[in-house]
Amino acid sequence: MKFPRPIPVTEIAGKIQAEIIGDNRLEATGINEIHQVENGDISFVDVEKYYKKALESQATIILIDKKTACPKGKVLLVCQTPFEAFNELVKEYRPIQPLTASIAPTAEIHPDAVVEVGAVVGHHVKIGKNAHIQANAVIGDYSIIGENAIIQSNSVVGSDAFYYKKTEEGFVKWRSGGRVIIENDVEIGAGCTICKGVTGDTVIGAGTKLDCQIQIGHDVKIGKNCLIAAQVGIAGNTRIGDWVTLYGQVGIAQNLNIGDRVIVGAKSGVSKDLEGGKTYFGYPAAEARTIYREMAALRHLPEFFANYYK
Amino acid sequence: MKFPRPIPVTEIAGKIQAEIIGDNRLEATGINEIHQVENGDISFVDVEKYYKKALESQATIILIDKKTACPKGKVLLVCQTPFEAFNELVKEYRPIQPLTASIAPTAEIHPDAVVEVGAVVGHHVKIGKNAHIQANAVIGDYSIIGENAIIQSNSVVGSDAFYYKKTEEGFVKWRSGGRVIIENDVEIGAGCTICKGVTGDTVIGAGTKLDCQIQIGHDVKIGKNCLIAAQVGIAGNTRIGDWVTLYGQVGIAQNLNIGDRVIVGAKSGVSKDLEGGKTYFGYPAAEARTIYREMAALRHLPEFFANYYK
Amino acid sequence: MKFPRPIPVTEIAGKIQAEIIGDNRLEATGINEIHQVENGDISFVDVEKYYKKALESQATIILIDKKTACPKGKVLLVCQTPFEAFNELVKEYRPIQPLTASIAPTAEIHPDAVVEVGAVVGHHVKIGKNAHIQANAVIGDYSIIGENAIIQSNSVVGSDAFYYKKTEEGFVKWRSGGRVIIENDVEIGAGCTICKGVTGDTVIGAGTKLDCQIQIGHDVKIGKNCLIAAQVGIAGNTRIGDWVTLYGQVGIAQNLNIGDRVIVGAKSGVSKDLEGGKTYFGYPAAEARTIYREMAALRHLPEFFANYYK
Repeated sequence: MKFPRPIPVTEIAGKIQAEIIGDNRLEATGINEIHQVENGDISFVDVEKYYKKALESQATIILIDKKTACPKGKVLLVCQTPFEAFNELVKEYRPIQPLTASIAPTAEIHPDAVVEVGAVVGHHVKIGKNAHIQANAVIGDYSIIGENAIIQSNSVVGSDAFYYKKTEEGFVKWRSGGRVIIENDVEIGAGCTICKGVTGDTVIGAGTKLDCQIQIGHDVKIGKNCLIAAQVGIAGNTRIGDWVTLYGQVGIAQNLNIGDRVIVGAKSGVSKDLEGGKTYFGYPAAEARTIYREMAALRHLPEFFANYYK
Repeated sequence: MKFPRPIPVTEIAGKIQAEIIGDNRLEATGINEIHQVENGDISFVDVEKYYKKALESQATIILIDKKTACPKGKVLLVCQTPFEAFNELVKEYRPIQPLTASIAPTAEIHPDAVVEVGAVVGHHVKIGKNAHIQANAVIGDYSIIGENAIIQSNSVVGSDAFYYKKTEEGFVKWRSGGRVIIENDVEIGAGCTICKGVTGDTVIGAGTKLDCQIQIGHDVKIGKNCLIAAQVGIAGNTRIGDWVTLYGQVGIAQNLNIGDRVIVGAKSGVSKDLEGGKTYFGYPAAEARTIYREMAALRHLPEFFANYYK
Repeated sequence: MKFPRPIPVTEIAGKIQAEIIGDNRLEATGINEIHQVENGDISFVDVEKYYKKALESQATIILIDKKTACPKGKVLLVCQTPFEAFNELVKEYRPIQPLTASIAPTAEIHPDAVVEVGAVVGHHVKIGKNAHIQANAVIGDYSIIGENAIIQSNSVVGSDAFYYKKTEEGFVKWRSGGRVIIENDVEIGAGCTICKGVTGDTVIGAGTKLDCQIQIGHDVKIGKNCLIAAQVGIAGNTRIGDWVTLYGQVGIAQNLNIGDRVIVGAKSGVSKDLEGGKTYFGYPAAEARTIYREMAALRHLPEFFANYYK
């Protein structure tokens, strides 16, 4: 998540009442969790074993719960609860603005785009030329919809990331500061839900086609010209290559890499990275020919036991 | 389902043209199917082998298709088609009122709650403090939404129970007289559907978080602080404990009990009760370590057969 | 897809700038892909090995990319890109009309039908007596909704067929010119998506009941009095008989035939035709007793190997 303007570290420290260690003239250009962090960003750390990783990361401003030496070119903001402070800053700079108009006044819709009756277009959304947002679809804040993109009825682009911090009392939500980017010529069927990135972007690559009732988790990156059949679910942070085909009801777990031109058979459950150019199947999924061999063997097993124990 | 006021049995008998056997001064405080029935309720029986169960149940008023002795403290209403009479009474006292306004005049919405554009709030709904009903969500009649609850876009709270009586001509719907109760701090992702109880309540316990495209059947009770990932389906009348984690695309059959702190791996199909505190996986689901052992053995099977039959 | 009036072949040839070979006095009564084509229809062929099939089909007017002899009673329209010309004609005679009113002026809604707030009813839709379209449901162009049918909230009847022509540059969509027909007494739960036929009809037979979040692909034909549980997906062009029961999360692949009174257990994945009157289960699905035997054998396998290799 990037800010519309650079924000002085002193302003940030004031918002969260933190002590500044390091160069207090620095400015933040964005805020991101540790996996997405870039130079100029705010990030946070609240677990001792990750201190080193955070301090050596690209982050320019680090919220931390212990006074420590500040690396050169960075600044530390020391506070008691860095996660809560981080969430507070996301809230401050990307506030939840309830949608009270069908088309938010800050949305930019190309004059050749169509937004049908009942569709809702959130704050700061951009919709490209010839895009078609069908009846009762919802386009959440900050989403970008490319040219010629079609979002069919009752789909939601930009639902919240399903991302929580577990505590003894219950689950605390990471505020979703990220976006969804739908590139040119993408088609999204009816009843799909595409979650925002936590602080980064969820991306559906140019020319990719989604059937109905597909769930795309936070921060997923899908490549170009993929074909994804109905009721597929892709969990958070997974990367899908180009020209990938996923048949109906496939599930793909989080944090995986799926190579280019992979084909996954219907209803498969993918729990590992998949090398490109191959066909996979099964639950859990493996190369299709391996699974077919196992299935053939299993079919033979009852008879084998019947004879073996005769 | 409870009535807003006690209803004299004579009034009820008149509505369905039934003969009264027993104490005609009694009043009905509600109406419920036999599994949900409480003292004061109307229930029905139309199959001889269940007469005894019905007559010994908590029901105060029993619709029945045969004259028989009335137990003390109860009253029988004798009619030819008790199921149809029961449905008629649910219809009479909880009529279907088409939603013609985005917010029904009988809905009670806390002034600090937010209902976004396009959302629809049904008759007699209650929405608590700081609750957030997002764009194009639908909250059906009589639902109760707790404090700080979030219902994301295009979700439906209070769809009809999928519950039919089979006849030779086709399926006759049980009218849904029940409710959905969403407790405090619950979050429901986009595109979820949560069915009403048939006559009882469907309950999502405090602090529980649902991802997108989750289906919750009629009369399901989910405990507190559960985490339920996208595209999970839970069938009618199943009970889920506290702190349960269900990964993506899990399916749970009807009428089951899932213990506290159970974890169910992605895409599993649960067809039996699950003891608390354990991790399950597979289709059908069993303890994960059992399934992993079977999977490892199966992987070895093709080679075993190749050698065995050499 | 049928035209509202017969269209002279000369008019059609003009639209797509094709050369006419054969009887130029013929008229087109409709346009259909080769699997759906009827006498009077336009169809197309652009692959040499299918020329014979197209020329011998029921089609009266054939778009073709090579000059060849025209069979008697037909007419050929020779053009360079028959697929694109076909799509162009579907677009011309069934144009996409953005939905800008909740109820399109060309929709015919029976006075005893109910259309709730937020629901959208498209162009040329017909809705029968006592039908109930719930809040925020979307009924796409040309759909027919029978008497007493219920379409619950946030369902979409008439989403586009997920049907593409693959090219080296990406996927080209077949324009959806087909319809959805919901027969009498059908009930569709919340959050379902039912796709139009490509050029033909998707049909849900009288008395069939669908639970929530069900996906029905293009050109699917479902028979009468079926019961389909939540989150089932049925892929394009599959036929389902009468009195079929599909439990939750079942997936059925495309182009299959499922016989009358079939029962398919929860979460099964059906990849082959299923003979009527039997019970199936598993992934991939087979007769339930076969699968149960395999499952029992598999359960025994780890112990068998442990002993065998001791």
